[in-house]
Amino acid sequence: MIDFYFDFISPYSYIGAMKIEALAAKHGEEVNWRPILLGVSIMKTMGLKPLLDTPLKGEYVRQDLPRLASLYNIPFAFPEHGLPNPIPPARAYCWVKRTAPQKATEFAQAVFSAQWRDERDISNEKVLVKLARDLGLDGEALLIAINSDDNKEYLKKEVADSLAKNIFGGPTFVIDEQVIWGADRLWMLEHWLTQKNWQQTLT
Amino acid sequence: MIDFYFDFISPYSYIGAMKIEALAAKHGEEVNWRPILLGVSIMKTMGLKPLLDTPLKGEYVRQDLPRLASLYNIPFAFPEHGLPNPIPPARAYCWVKRTAPQKATEFAQAVFSAQWRDERDISNEKVLVKLARDLGLDGEALLIAINSDDNKEYLKKEVADSLAKNIFGGPTFVIDEQVIWGADRLWMLEHWLTQKNWQQTLT
Repeated sequence: MIDFYFDFISPYSYIGAMKIEALAAKHGEEVNWRPILLGVSIMKTMGLKPLLDTPLKGEYVRQDLPRLASLYNIPFAFPEHGLPNPIPPARAYCWVKRTAPQKATEFAQAVFSAQWRDERDISNEKVLVKLARDLGLDGEALLIAINSDDNKEYLKKEVADSLAKNIFGGPTFVIDEQVIWGADRLWMLEHWLTQKNWQQTLT
Repeated sequence: MIDFYFDFISPYSYIGAMKIEALAAKHGEEVNWRPILLGVSIMKTMGLKPLLDTPLKGEYVRQDLPRLASLYNIPFAFPEHGLPNPIPPARAYCWVKRTAPQKATEFAQAVFSAQWRDERDISNEKVLVKLARDLGLDGEALLIAINSDDNKEYLKKEVADSLAKNIFGGPTFVIDEQVIWGADRLWMLEHWLTQKNWQQTLT
């Protein structure tokens, strides 16, 4: 089982979200999708700035995302509306995971693609309702779920649990207690899935 | 020509320093070693904390370094004395590069190995003198060079130039205007050296 920690606000999480299922399937692993909020981990706990607002690094990221996506053959566009508020889609995801788990991964990927491929604003509840309905989910129920206490609590617990496990970025992959951070480390995750150790030297 | 930006304080730069020459040679490229000071870029310009002092991330890095080094078959030890003051070895490196450039790469690798393999404190001028003498360099001249105005100026210019080029971390590799950051991205550098584009999809 691979725990896959993601935040819809994070374009690198999008890249991870588009790659992880095929990689896991290739090695006979299941993926447990775990929503996190980088605003809590990065800004509140670590005292850092948001990635794209960090001097020097923000510029690098803007150049790096298109080429990394291209390398992985993932369509990517940086939306004009900028970063979304990740809380509505994260709560929506929690609701789908709790009530229709068989559609949760598809829903998460649809949300990621809406934001980072189709340049739509996933902070917008109407966008989320449309994405849910496209998957045969109940749009009205989703609207209620976004503000329901039980989904708020579910997400809070997920975030607290991620911090307790030292997860600080998205995407992060955890397997066999190995914590692997970054969409640029899929090679390292694959190495573990293949070897189950770090002894085999890379050429 | 690959520009290789490094800081002796950075264990990930050590990993890069141990791998870059063979990788470049395999593709017929020269390496231009460029000293930077992450204390200036990360703390002053970016307003971030030192990597190992960053909550959550610091713990990750302590777990990640030994396994990444192991993967690359590089001996690694985290020294008890902790991080060195990177300014004396950086100025010493500038002096070697300016006065005995044919020995500069070997000197840099010896300094990195002293700190991150042999657990010696490269802030200590005696350690630097010994490393220099082992390569047939003039130890007395090195002591003078560390505090000479021209080496101070040379390093300052290198740091200013790195900031002007948006370099924010070590190791960073630059080739054909592609900026590639991180010891975990050697695969990406190699992809560029092989393909010279980002179109070829990874499997």
